[in-house]
Amino acid sequence: MRTIDWVDGAVEIIDQTVLPGELRVLRLHTVGELVAAIQSLAVRGAPALGVAGAFGVALAARVHGDDPVALGNAVRKIETARPTAVNLARGAQRAAHLLPLGPDAVLAEACAIRDEEIAASLAMASRGADLVVELRGDRPRLLTHCNTGGLAAVTVGTALGVVGELHRRGTLGAVIASETRPLLQGARLTSWELTQWGIEHRVAVDSAGPFLMARGEVDAVILGADRICANGDVINKIGTYAHALGARRAGLPFVVVAPESTVDVATPTGAHVEIEDRGAAEVTAWGDAANPAFDVTPHDLVTAIVTDRRVIRLDRGERP
Amino acid sequence: MRTIDWVDGAVEIIDQTVLPGELRVLRLHTVGELVAAIQSLAVRGAPALGVAGAFGVALAARVHGDDPVALGNAVRKIETARPTAVNLARGAQRAAHLLPLGPDAVLAEACAIRDEEIAASLAMASRGADLVVELRGDRPRLLTHCNTGGLAAVTVGTALGVVGELHRRGTLGAVIASETRPLLQGARLTSWELTQWGIEHRVAVDSAGPFLMARGEVDAVILGADRICANGDVINKIGTYAHALGARRAGLPFVVVAPESTVDVATPTGAHVEIEDRGAAEVTAWGDAANPAFDVTPHDLVTAIVTDRRVIRLDRGERP
Repeated sequence: MRTIDWVDGAVEIIDQTVLPGELRVLRLHTVGELVAAIQSLAVRGAPALGVAGAFGVALAARVHGDDPVALGNAVRKIETARPTAVNLARGAQRAAHLLPLGPDAVLAEACAIRDEEIAASLAMASRGADLVVELRGDRPRLLTHCNTGGLAAVTVGTALGVVGELHRRGTLGAVIASETRPLLQGARLTSWELTQWGIEHRVAVDSAGPFLMARGEVDAVILGADRICANGDVINKIGTYAHALGARRAGLPFVVVAPESTVDVATPTGAHVEIEDRGAAEVTAWGDAANPAFDVTPHDLVTAIVTDRRVIRLDRGERP
Repeated sequence: MRTIDWVDGAVEIIDQTVLPGELRVLRLHTVGELVAAIQSLAVRGAPALGVAGAFGVALAARVHGDDPVALGNAVRKIETARPTAVNLARGAQRAAHLLPLGPDAVLAEACAIRDEEIAASLAMASRGADLVVELRGDRPRLLTHCNTGGLAAVTVGTALGVVGELHRRGTLGAVIASETRPLLQGARLTSWELTQWGIEHRVAVDSAGPFLMARGEVDAVILGADRICANGDVINKIGTYAHALGARRAGLPFVVVAPESTVDVATPTGAHVEIEDRGAAEVTAWGDAANPAFDVTPHDLVTAIVTDRRVIRLDRGERP
């Protein structure tokens, strides 16, 4: 099952706001519907957002094919639906380059991006599993944050794809999924995917991760990224940085798994990235909140970044 | 208003499980009712638990005054209702020493413990406010975790009492309250108390704290303790350690405020403390969880401990 796909002239997504209670497929026929789905996190995860951006332009091309102003507005609306993950704007721009060739060419490019993400997931799963075993030996006990499974990509996923691959090889030790407040992508989505895959796991509140590492219950931390900067700084779901601090203090590898489409060498450091603030309502029913949806993990806290093409050993001075 | 008190022959507590939706007072007439209230966290917070332990023995003395076996069982049941905070067992034991003198003497001792905690709160508020201003100057922006207000003590509180005192002095910069999963003592109780006190504040998910520090939104972290070990290790609500790691990396003071009744020199280090595991149901509606209710913050991450009698500058090598 694919998280996002083009089916009979519309974009179909698994609605991630109602999982795990309900497995609902949404059909999106317009750019407005797609942008709303992105902003409500019905579709989320950097690789999936890249595909969503491209399919969004394919929708726009069918509706506004002969109106360059309307097309330009639609592409801008898609690109800026969420600011932090680089993949969304990049997927939209890549599809938009084909606009002069007509809607079919745009759709073909969007489908190519989808297929590349599927291939990238498989490559990362294999390479990431090799790296984790190299770093920590067989039967590693892993902690992961947020959701980086098939729901964050098209299938398989990034960091959770590595977990699945280790399980498939019969050498997974244990998994802790942090719940990932405020929207519980870990407790809702990762726990659901692991259950679908038949992988035993425990859920922990986000603030428990560093202590569970200190207490010796974790061999490595493995998670995804929404943007990887030129210096190796990693932008990812809020809480990533706190887990990186915990891993460093406990002397554990901190491994980031993300496709090349997430690497953004045009952004020098994490300080240059706009961090989305999603407002108070997600955090508290009354009063004010500080709700950054992402954080910056400085490169010196990252052991390695695994992409579909390479392993970047930041701990050895390598850079993206 | 007192969080816990002895009123007309019974223990009265504010039921902290239903705040902020409802301000309900529970009357507890038996040791069984008191232990159930402790275990459900209807009454919680190390100083309040010390008073609860003592009042529990006062209840036992009235019911079982002439039955030493039943009395001994009741005292043990109270002492062990929760394992991590030292105050509970200590308050119960101190009241139990008066059992040979009869129920009135036990009650008088329990009321003395209550009054000492009230006095301790006032002393900590003043001393803590002085220290924070000494460390960070006027108008400090503070981050606090869990609930350490009047609801965790009898009145005023520990770390939150310092926040209130800075506000009273007109020199509080800002406050961020971390929500404190899984039971949301920060989002429910601290936010409610700050609102009652007229103090503007923001709530943040627990995993955001370290990033908000890195981003320059915090001048110092201030929170409480359930037990302070001989070497200065601090046992406190899960998430305390992650915040301490964030403070260290950002170069911020990490200040612990707790009464002398929380200092336990008989426990050498944090490794000797039983960390309560509260089971999966608090974290996830289905499946397994890792749910330690407390964590250990190593003494080297703590700048200072403020008690009702002294400031222990761990950063200068001082020890409890």
